[in-house]
Amino acid sequence: MSDVVSLALPHIAQLHAYTPGLQPTAPGWVKLNTNECPYPPSPRVVEALAREIGADGASLRLYPNPKSSPLRAAVARYHGHGLTEANVCVGNGSDDILNLLVRAFCTQDAAAGFTLPSYSLYPVLVGIQDGRSTVIEFDRSMRLPVAQIAASTARAFFLTSPNAPTGVAFSNAELEQVLTSYRGLFVVDEAYAPFATENAVPLLARYPHLVIVRTLSKAHALAGIRVGYALADAAVIDLLDRVRDSYNVNRLSQAAALAAIEDPVYYDGIIARVKATRDRAVADFAQRRGWFTYPSQSNFIFTEPKTARGESGPAVSKSAYDFLYAHHVLVRHFPSHALTAPFLRLSVGTDAEMAVLSETLDAWTKAPFPPAGSR
Amino acid sequence: MSDVVSLALPHIAQLHAYTPGLQPTAPGWVKLNTNECPYPPSPRVVEALAREIGADGASLRLYPNPKSSPLRAAVARYHGHGLTEANVCVGNGSDDILNLLVRAFCTQDAAAGFTLPSYSLYPVLVGIQDGRSTVIEFDRSMRLPVAQIAASTARAFFLTSPNAPTGVAFSNAELEQVLTSYRGLFVVDEAYAPFATENAVPLLARYPHLVIVRTLSKAHALAGIRVGYALADAAVIDLLDRVRDSYNVNRLSQAAALAAIEDPVYYDGIIARVKATRDRAVADFAQRRGWFTYPSQSNFIFTEPKTARGESGPAVSKSAYDFLYAHHVLVRHFPSHALTAPFLRLSVGTDAEMAVLSETLDAWTKAPFPPAGSR
Repeated sequence: MSDVVSLALPHIAQLHAYTPGLQPTAPGWVKLNTNECPYPPSPRVVEALAREIGADGASLRLYPNPKSSPLRAAVARYHGHGLTEANVCVGNGSDDILNLLVRAFCTQDAAAGFTLPSYSLYPVLVGIQDGRSTVIEFDRSMRLPVAQIAASTARAFFLTSPNAPTGVAFSNAELEQVLTSYRGLFVVDEAYAPFATENAVPLLARYPHLVIVRTLSKAHALAGIRVGYALADAAVIDLLDRVRDSYNVNRLSQAAALAAIEDPVYYDGIIARVKATRDRAVADFAQRRGWFTYPSQSNFIFTEPKTARGESGPAVSKSAYDFLYAHHVLVRHFPSHALTAPFLRLSVGTDAEMAVLSETLDAWTKAPFPPAGSR
Repeated sequence: MSDVVSLALPHIAQLHAYTPGLQPTAPGWVKLNTNECPYPPSPRVVEALAREIGADGASLRLYPNPKSSPLRAAVARYHGHGLTEANVCVGNGSDDILNLLVRAFCTQDAAAGFTLPSYSLYPVLVGIQDGRSTVIEFDRSMRLPVAQIAASTARAFFLTSPNAPTGVAFSNAELEQVLTSYRGLFVVDEAYAPFATENAVPLLARYPHLVIVRTLSKAHALAGIRVGYALADAAVIDLLDRVRDSYNVNRLSQAAALAAIEDPVYYDGIIARVKATRDRAVADFAQRRGWFTYPSQSNFIFTEPKTARGESGPAVSKSAYDFLYAHHVLVRHFPSHALTAPFLRLSVGTDAEMAVLSETLDAWTKAPFPPAGSR
């Protein structure tokens, strides 16, 4: 088959695909690895889906609204701040939006900038585009390297805020320091912003080179329907629409997302529950266990496991990950970067799930380290 | 805002987006413009969606199966001919698959070939990729230019079979003549193949450079859920998976598509009904009206309207289109190419819809041409 592969563009044959978190299909897992919401979506979502499907699914014969126009309008109303439908582009997940941004703005001669660590999809998208990356490294403080980003020559800069996988958020004051100096397109990926104390939406009116990316996969408990969106200047939205597939969001996802966006009261409730559970977990890890844990403004916590003897590091976090996995608790470990390798990322689940997590980690702490049989 | 637009890649700022067919939201239209199925999807689709959504939509919290693996396996079983899951890539509509193919195989130095007329998305995708197109023109016979395609230096060649918007199908014997000479990737876009007498699936085992693209939007009455797929050598599928978004197909669309693929008996029934209606319509246009009409192996017919005085041409077809539109019958007109401009493309609807179409065209024939007030 090497003949066929040789027909592909050289950079494609060398790509490493993005590695999504495990999605176990067997029951019995405590799944705290992909930052999904532990609570179901708004009951209005189920009602809206039933309406859209109808008795015989006849509406599914028909193509969806090409621009997801009713959803764009609802998103604009939801965020306020003078936004209109012309400031919204809806994607097949926010990954679709990020891909459109890379395709419209980034190439070999127009670098894509991002920090390390941050959402690991960015370099994958740049690789598919055969583009060039400019990387700015965090230090362990995880404070925003404002001056470095502001001075970046990247054509577009992707910042995850609150950041992943650390959960650390950046203030609008810091973002404005970037926006007043940086001349490229500044993309703030706010996948976790509903769990934060601040978000960048109020800045949009003043900075036409600011793009905010949101998803319904986290706070809106709708990872399964794949809907995300961009908020930006109408000229940027127009560019994304030229690159976007003309029917990128199906009918059912449009209906579900619209119902969710129009039920903020329900979501305020579950977001408050997730934040309360998160804050108790952060206290548990930081105070009771004495594990270094970043302050989280997201729906996950990033913590550095310590053995009973006080050791930490990549081998320790790997041991904790493996122990949890063996006990059917699924979390995430990022061994590929020195700043993330000693840590685990734990999605905030229900209180019951967090209790299982905590008990399993207690058992790990009592188990011998290094584990018997390891080298 | 010109500042922000100037940040975009130069070819993006010059793009013309694909123009999808009109999707009227008001009721009362006879919608024969986008080749949707006039019958609802299999009842199993509705059942599968109800199961997936459950009482409270809790499954929607969770990311979908990243590779749509159960659906890939079902598609492979459905087609047989030794295909396995490794020979299938599922897309967010077949447009997603076509886009992945262009991204993986085509650029300035590796042209994308296609015929004119054919599916008008191909040049749009090449434009987004900043690629280069090689175009082979049909003549009015619409016979496949086998020798020209076989001799093409395009890295990948996209052939719609049955073709759009003509409905003319090409035989496997003709496709094999191309496959034995052409050295690039040969993509046969079989969106309408379920309505044809033959398809290219049996050729896959012998030609690793053959890719077949299918959609559930037409014969499967599921344009609203956006599912299509590629059938190809496992090495080609592996390349597409590297470029593909890791969660490109949502949970509900996966569930609906799986149920549809697993109910071929239902679909054999509605496909037979569409073909019977189509064949009656072709006879009506060709014999009763005396309008030149291509033999159709699709779910639409491509016919050249004639006035009462026997005139045809772009102005005549435009007049018929406008008259139909004014009477809330929506069809498609392709004025941008000399071979298509004198024609209308009419999706095959229910018998009742086709009767309205026929009566409205009878009324148009009796109306004065050129219409009063036209220049």
